[in-house]
Amino acid sequence: MQLIRFGEAGNEKIGVKVGEKNYDVSAFGGDYNEQFFAENGLSKLAQFVQDHEGKLAEVPADARIGAPIARPSKIVCIGLNYKDHAEETGAAIPAEPIIFMKSTTSLVGPFDQVMLPKNSEKTDWEVEFGIVIDKKASYVSEADALDYVAGYVLHNDVSEREYQLERGGTWDKGKGCDTFAPIGPVLTTKEEIPDINNVRLWLKVNGKTYQDGNTKNLIFNVPFIVSYVSQFMTLLPGDVISTGTPAGVGLGFNPPIYLKPGDVIELGADYLGESRQEVIAYR
Amino acid sequence: MQLIRFGEAGNEKIGVKVGEKNYDVSAFGGDYNEQFFAENGLSKLAQFVQDHEGKLAEVPADARIGAPIARPSKIVCIGLNYKDHAEETGAAIPAEPIIFMKSTTSLVGPFDQVMLPKNSEKTDWEVEFGIVIDKKASYVSEADALDYVAGYVLHNDVSEREYQLERGGTWDKGKGCDTFAPIGPVLTTKEEIPDINNVRLWLKVNGKTYQDGNTKNLIFNVPFIVSYVSQFMTLLPGDVISTGTPAGVGLGFNPPIYLKPGDVIELGADYLGESRQEVIAYR
Repeated sequence: MQLIRFGEAGNEKIGVKVGEKNYDVSAFGGDYNEQFFAENGLSKLAQFVQDHEGKLAEVPADARIGAPIARPSKIVCIGLNYKDHAEETGAAIPAEPIIFMKSTTSLVGPFDQVMLPKNSEKTDWEVEFGIVIDKKASYVSEADALDYVAGYVLHNDVSEREYQLERGGTWDKGKGCDTFAPIGPVLTTKEEIPDINNVRLWLKVNGKTYQDGNTKNLIFNVPFIVSYVSQFMTLLPGDVISTGTPAGVGLGFNPPIYLKPGDVIELGADYLGESRQEVIAYR
Repeated sequence: MQLIRFGEAGNEKIGVKVGEKNYDVSAFGGDYNEQFFAENGLSKLAQFVQDHEGKLAEVPADARIGAPIARPSKIVCIGLNYKDHAEETGAAIPAEPIIFMKSTTSLVGPFDQVMLPKNSEKTDWEVEFGIVIDKKASYVSEADALDYVAGYVLHNDVSEREYQLERGGTWDKGKGCDTFAPIGPVLTTKEEIPDINNVRLWLKVNGKTYQDGNTKNLIFNVPFIVSYVSQFMTLLPGDVISTGTPAGVGLGFNPPIYLKPGDVIELGADYLGESRQEVIAYR
């Protein structure tokens, strides 16, 4: 199953994608939030869709597509989780996962604009494979970890490198600006992906490919990450863990390449669809 | 005005503290959450309390007191914001505020138990003066910052030092474990505190005073912090910013002193009341 949300930002309706078409399932009620996942929403929704086969209204083709999840309790990220990306940033390969957090106010839809922060000169892109949590998870074993996963999303972990690396404090400072987490277009439930350790993900800026990676090159894979993060904090239904970015971010070039107003970012991943963000100046 | 929440964890009712007594205001409706603050809840509640003077039921004396706010969208913290604390940890005085984030699942009531994480050996205390946001705040000036503040809370920023400092990644790893954010007993609205730059705060473990500080020694004060954080992420109504801890944490002793099961932490601050947590082992 593939979940979508559509309509005005902050007032999205829920839908599902079947084949190439998006259908309105707002009659199911609620939103794709903590309560939805906690109350076994995925299987109830699958039943609802089956019961209403052929009777669901199509989402208008010109509708805005929102993030496929409502604002989660947290967006946790794993840093430097691809060897080639760690190398390009000059960082050591981590001995265990690096955890940081994005303010959830950074969440936007997959085709929304990315707004550079005021006076920002070092805003960068990061295509990532994101995990959405299905059930409350604390001290989950690696063997059981996938039982706690609802599915996966495409995430552009937009990052302001000066704020992240040169302003003191932790990476959180450069990760949570408004519009810095375009997520979607879909949440693809876990059973739809035959091998999460073999998902290609890519990113282009202005038509040029900068990132072309595969989750097979993750240093720490999905079950390990879910288990690991759950040792440090309780994960709630609907929470997102973003698993890190492969090589090819702007910071890795000499000189670095950063986003400027008018740039167009396109990204995609197998099974997770494609997204596109235009970069705009602060306003 | 002083806000409280009482009753079973996860199902608290709202109340107000008037003099030494707690009154049930659940008839006002809702919870002390984002919506409450966003919809001008503080002034509506003040009117409600005035309209019902002498008619509000007292909260039973044996009721559990919860955190005075419902789960916020984020708990942002400022690190090393007292010169004496920076020195005791061997860290440099920061040139600008250090920002990190606590998972909001760490929030508990002021008299709830603090649970050591599994196999934790370095869990530490930190008494802090916390800010609660009243209005959505983005790029707020220092001059206007207090307009965006609802009030203040007492916070024990419980911290696992091994996770925070020795496990790679950012401080977030040692800050967001379950029960690591006892907040309360009250939210004291801003007009009740004559000078936020002169608030004493203290913390004892097993009856011995370890911390005895004053917000007059903050390196970065409340208006500066609100303005500063709002440059990096949008603050939502009900969000918490914890302003840092004065000297006297366990990490600062030689050898360090860490919490063990059975320890009792007591803390307090002028205008914000006192809290008390018993430390228990992981279970």
